[in-house]
Amino acid sequence: MECIRVFSPATVANVNCGFDVLGFALEGIGDEIFLRKVPQKGISITKITGADLPMEASKNVAGVAGMAMLEFLNADFGFEIEIKKGIPIGSGIGGSAASAAAIVFGINQFLDKPLSLQQLAYFGMKGEAIASGNEHADNVAPAIFGGFTLIPGYDPFEVVSLPVPDDLFVTIIHPHIEINTKDSRAALPKMVPLQDAIKQSGNLAGLISGLYTSNYELIKRSLIDVLIEPHRKPLIPLFDNAKKVALEAKALGFGIGGSGPSMFALSKGEKTATSIEAALIDLYCKSDNKIDTIVSKLSKTGSKILNE
Amino acid sequence: MECIRVFSPATVANVNCGFDVLGFALEGIGDEIFLRKVPQKGISITKITGADLPMEASKNVAGVAGMAMLEFLNADFGFEIEIKKGIPIGSGIGGSAASAAAIVFGINQFLDKPLSLQQLAYFGMKGEAIASGNEHADNVAPAIFGGFTLIPGYDPFEVVSLPVPDDLFVTIIHPHIEINTKDSRAALPKMVPLQDAIKQSGNLAGLISGLYTSNYELIKRSLIDVLIEPHRKPLIPLFDNAKKVALEAKALGFGIGGSGPSMFALSKGEKTATSIEAALIDLYCKSDNKIDTIVSKLSKTGSKILNE
Repeated sequence: MECIRVFSPATVANVNCGFDVLGFALEGIGDEIFLRKVPQKGISITKITGADLPMEASKNVAGVAGMAMLEFLNADFGFEIEIKKGIPIGSGIGGSAASAAAIVFGINQFLDKPLSLQQLAYFGMKGEAIASGNEHADNVAPAIFGGFTLIPGYDPFEVVSLPVPDDLFVTIIHPHIEINTKDSRAALPKMVPLQDAIKQSGNLAGLISGLYTSNYELIKRSLIDVLIEPHRKPLIPLFDNAKKVALEAKALGFGIGGSGPSMFALSKGEKTATSIEAALIDLYCKSDNKIDTIVSKLSKTGSKILNE
Repeated sequence: MECIRVFSPATVANVNCGFDVLGFALEGIGDEIFLRKVPQKGISITKITGADLPMEASKNVAGVAGMAMLEFLNADFGFEIEIKKGIPIGSGIGGSAASAAAIVFGINQFLDKPLSLQQLAYFGMKGEAIASGNEHADNVAPAIFGGFTLIPGYDPFEVVSLPVPDDLFVTIIHPHIEINTKDSRAALPKMVPLQDAIKQSGNLAGLISGLYTSNYELIKRSLIDVLIEPHRKPLIPLFDNAKKVALEAKALGFGIGGSGPSMFALSKGEKTATSIEAALIDLYCKSDNKIDTIVSKLSKTGSKILNE
């Protein structure tokens, strides 16, 4: 094969009580990268559609991640790539991570899969970090593995792929405001009450167990974030109202996606996810805030080759 | 059936990164209670072997737990009971919890199981609390359910039964010292670093996942307690040495059992558990500290009726 087309899904990181360790992948929405193997070393970007992003490879997340991987593998060839952004810039659902995931996944496929998915997540993270300044794999890991992924730690770096109950849907809501990453970090306290830390870990443990057993009631009772949400929610307009509206519309849980301003509601079944979306549109419309919304099944597959 | 003999196993609470939420049950070692239904209301204790404990029901954990349950169920009869303590007093492996578990489990059996295991755990906890002053179910829950149990929260009270990998063994070591519960509580800080709280929750999530997938390597990497152990270990003689010795003998993890002074090592296979025991005996013998040790498979069954 001389050409490969890869799809990598949008993702939500910092999932509620799983702040910094838990992420999940969406279905249907994501970035596509088309790779053509060429004799020249390195990555050259020939086309980008769907977003206004740097064509220069060294300034583009996919370019940087791809070059880092080619260098690591000591490749004596390179790739021309086309990027089709399906994830809007700044929407908080892992746009950079998806592009980084797609290119490392695609290169690996070209080379008969020398790297494991976990190694790809590591590379994707490194590539994404050079471009974004933030070395975290909680978006790139689910963009590669699909489903829910847990990153218990970075030393050693590890990704644990968790099962996804069949009927799990997500409603994403993206208010049109920007949150400065600095403000978002500064909102977090350095110290937290031990009792809250224990409560949070119990909730995360309950959530993990609920995912393994498809126990929606347990998932619901576990989706409570006592550590992070209280500090970050003041940065997001109408957060408390949105949460109330979503839970009243039978969301299993609601939270800030990544570091905001996106929010997400998890629910059982597409119908519930769609009513949550309607209720949220109604709320923000009344208050004259502009938002985008997405409803998606949780993806079990992660990155995939489209022309196999 | 007019008579029932119940066995409830010894348990370890505060399992490492699962402080306050995770416990597990041992096999083979536990308390037995023999119940005989009588027309007189209430509980009367006719015999206690294996430990010097109050015969007066209102001063005995099993008595208190049993009476509370009979009252709740509005029973117009009572029980004569004999208690055979298999768990040494003060050994830190859930002696009171086992007695409380055994009596509520036995009474439930007599009445054709009106209560769920979770309700029994709640009752056992209430009974144990009246006697011990400590309302926690992290010993009584595994004593009833068996295996690993997670208690994500007390409001609502919930017990999640977790799977146990087949080859999981525990080595218990009990130094002959007493730790005042007050000291043990006072050793804990009120506030902890957010980064440590996140690390701890990631470890607990990894451990839960490892239990569901029988992934011993993941269990091993996850059994790290950064929140509690550093503060409590100074109360226990030779803790750091014991941990080093256990890990060198291939323990998956090591930690303080309950609030100490007992310690436990988890391992894969009985042979490893026994070498850990030998290494620990050697360590404490050299330093002239008296200890008891137990090696046990993790029990999957919890409380059971012996004369069915």
